[in-house]
Amino acid sequence: MSLLVQKYGGSSVATIERIKHVAEKVWAAKRAGHDVIVVVSAMAGETNRLLGLAHEISEMPDEREKDVLLASGEQVSIALLSLALKERGQPSRSFLGHQVRIETDNVYGKARIRNIDSRRILQSLKEGEVVVVAGFQGIDEDDNITTLGRGGSDTTAVALAAFLNARACEIYTDVEGVFTTDPGICADAQKLPRISYEEMIELASTGAKVLEIRSVEFAKRFAVPVHVRSTFSDIEGTWVVKEDESMEDLLVSGVSYDKNEVKITILRVPDRPGLAAQVFGPIADAHIVVDMIIQNASADGTTDLTFTVSKADYKKALSIVEKTAPAIAAKGVDVDTDIAKVSVVGVGMRTHAGVAAKMFRVLAEEGVNIEMISTSEIKISVVIDAKYTELAVRVLHEAFIGKQGNV
Amino acid sequence: MSLLVQKYGGSSVATIERIKHVAEKVWAAKRAGHDVIVVVSAMAGETNRLLGLAHEISEMPDEREKDVLLASGEQVSIALLSLALKERGQPSRSFLGHQVRIETDNVYGKARIRNIDSRRILQSLKEGEVVVVAGFQGIDEDDNITTLGRGGSDTTAVALAAFLNARACEIYTDVEGVFTTDPGICADAQKLPRISYEEMIELASTGAKVLEIRSVEFAKRFAVPVHVRSTFSDIEGTWVVKEDESMEDLLVSGVSYDKNEVKITILRVPDRPGLAAQVFGPIADAHIVVDMIIQNASADGTTDLTFTVSKADYKKALSIVEKTAPAIAAKGVDVDTDIAKVSVVGVGMRTHAGVAAKMFRVLAEEGVNIEMISTSEIKISVVIDAKYTELAVRVLHEAFIGKQGNV
Repeated sequence: MSLLVQKYGGSSVATIERIKHVAEKVWAAKRAGHDVIVVVSAMAGETNRLLGLAHEISEMPDEREKDVLLASGEQVSIALLSLALKERGQPSRSFLGHQVRIETDNVYGKARIRNIDSRRILQSLKEGEVVVVAGFQGIDEDDNITTLGRGGSDTTAVALAAFLNARACEIYTDVEGVFTTDPGICADAQKLPRISYEEMIELASTGAKVLEIRSVEFAKRFAVPVHVRSTFSDIEGTWVVKEDESMEDLLVSGVSYDKNEVKITILRVPDRPGLAAQVFGPIADAHIVVDMIIQNASADGTTDLTFTVSKADYKKALSIVEKTAPAIAAKGVDVDTDIAKVSVVGVGMRTHAGVAAKMFRVLAEEGVNIEMISTSEIKISVVIDAKYTELAVRVLHEAFIGKQGNV
Repeated sequence: MSLLVQKYGGSSVATIERIKHVAEKVWAAKRAGHDVIVVVSAMAGETNRLLGLAHEISEMPDEREKDVLLASGEQVSIALLSLALKERGQPSRSFLGHQVRIETDNVYGKARIRNIDSRRILQSLKEGEVVVVAGFQGIDEDDNITTLGRGGSDTTAVALAAFLNARACEIYTDVEGVFTTDPGICADAQKLPRISYEEMIELASTGAKVLEIRSVEFAKRFAVPVHVRSTFSDIEGTWVVKEDESMEDLLVSGVSYDKNEVKITILRVPDRPGLAAQVFGPIADAHIVVDMIIQNASADGTTDLTFTVSKADYKKALSIVEKTAPAIAAKGVDVDTDIAKVSVVGVGMRTHAGVAAKMFRVLAEEGVNIEMISTSEIKISVVIDAKYTELAVRVLHEAFIGKQGNV
């Protein structure tokens, strides 16, 4: 028998009716001849309800206790799904993170999985049971409860598929797969039948929300085929897999956008070695992640230093930079909260020249000014005025992918 | 420093405000110089909410998965209480059943505690932390989650006090202690300053609801002093302790009642050896607990066999008895759902004669007919018509305890 890992998110188990629906889908996979491990998230809304209780007690709740609190959400959903399977006559057994020893480091709230003890799971599968595992949670080496952060159940599922050498990891969600861009703002968006791990990572890190980035990195590292598909239909979704040659025929697989960043500029700083370290050291010390950084030296010996951070972090970043600015003799600090990052992603860029030039030309023809540019081997991102976001996505999609798609 | 175990029930942690109040009380005990272990139940209503979800899926939910589900309730309350303590600057650490290895047998839903690993708790206390332990839950030897049944958090607290050799176990509840009878039906009811384990067990098993009977048995076995008191005031409650000589001076410590039983009578059965076994064997096989049993042989060679069971079980018991009745040539089966059991309890009965006679006379003077009688060394129970319950409790309390009390 081949082993299948299925993951169902919070919206898929939001009500008892939906849990029964999930049980039907799992049961069907089992009857089709697969061994099945199911990973579930907390019922939709439960994690936020629990966080709300914690914040009624403390503005900054202790991280260890917050993880104990949040991990209870998945405990409820695994028990209910296992009950629903048994009610159909399908033997089943639920496991918490500590029961199958999903060992993580001890970074509460965003722990990383180090190891999983597969013995108990294999024993249960051997006895014909469907194994239902709590997503999002693990234990550190001292048996403290840890959680993996937002989207952590995806990572649990991929890690189980990796450690147990599953045929595939199916991620069930409320959309039908990975699209060439957001169907909400571009009617021509198409579902991709296949996409490489690298492209999926770039799409996830530039704004696409369908998969959590760490789960894709995990899948890539262990070469786990991931199938993103809908809980509410039976049609094929998108396979996230190892890159193959045919994928390079496409210049661009997807167009993504992110309105969640803020641009901070330090104006006319006298340029000298060590400047960037002096600026970004204190920001890193405050655990703020900086996305794009641009520095341009001008002829008069000064430079403008521009970077972006997430909206959640920008007030903290700004107060740090305003302390640094006088020390480096900057003329001032400028903030723009009204920006968007638009990106095109595709492994074809590695072998085809001219993608960047075409992107800049398409935007120029619509009068969209480019404020920042950042590139990787398979991605080009530009920062533009937020009001042009939807226009930029549509014209880039039209220029690179088109109505018929490139797939 | 002396070690104190405190237990707070569901109504004491029903809201965030109440959890903060509990944190204040715990903190006060810690500042008063005690090492403190706190045991909490799920927030009031949560266990029933979770049970409701399970019953939406299955009429008879699987016992293992039900325990996984229910144990999540205490997980939420320990995390919240620990957060509330830290918010006050008091170091604290929460522990689930598996983290301090509260080992039980594998009888899901009513597991019994076998052992507790005290090392991690002692380590935490040594570091100056308040230890917050989830009540009601444990693990079996295969790491399956188990629960201890209704009132199980009392047992967790007493067991921790026993295994860690605590000075006392304080049970915080919404009443001020153990009363000579229900203050709701008898205005003269008084709070007892002290009561023996044996008396408390008899009161609990004859209808008093303040403590779960298994927790008192545990306390007796390990000689743990238990202090039952109110979460909402600071006055002394009732100490449940080892019997001492002064206690025998009192004839009766308390008057209890139970309206939750049903009387079943098998009429005019030809009497012969083995009859009782034939009747009660199938009832025991159905896991129905029988409380009182009376058999009276009459001169004509037949006998009436009468017994009581709880209201929850009586339909099942009746259908079993109706199958047995023809086989033993009974003339019929009679049911009375309108009965009450009223009991007087006191260790003084062991050394003082005449308590039973006085009880029967007091009831007779009020015209209350006694339908069944059952006695133990320190208890006399009578079954009467339910409509006389309150009257019987009041006159017995007046006769044995009085307005000034015997305390």
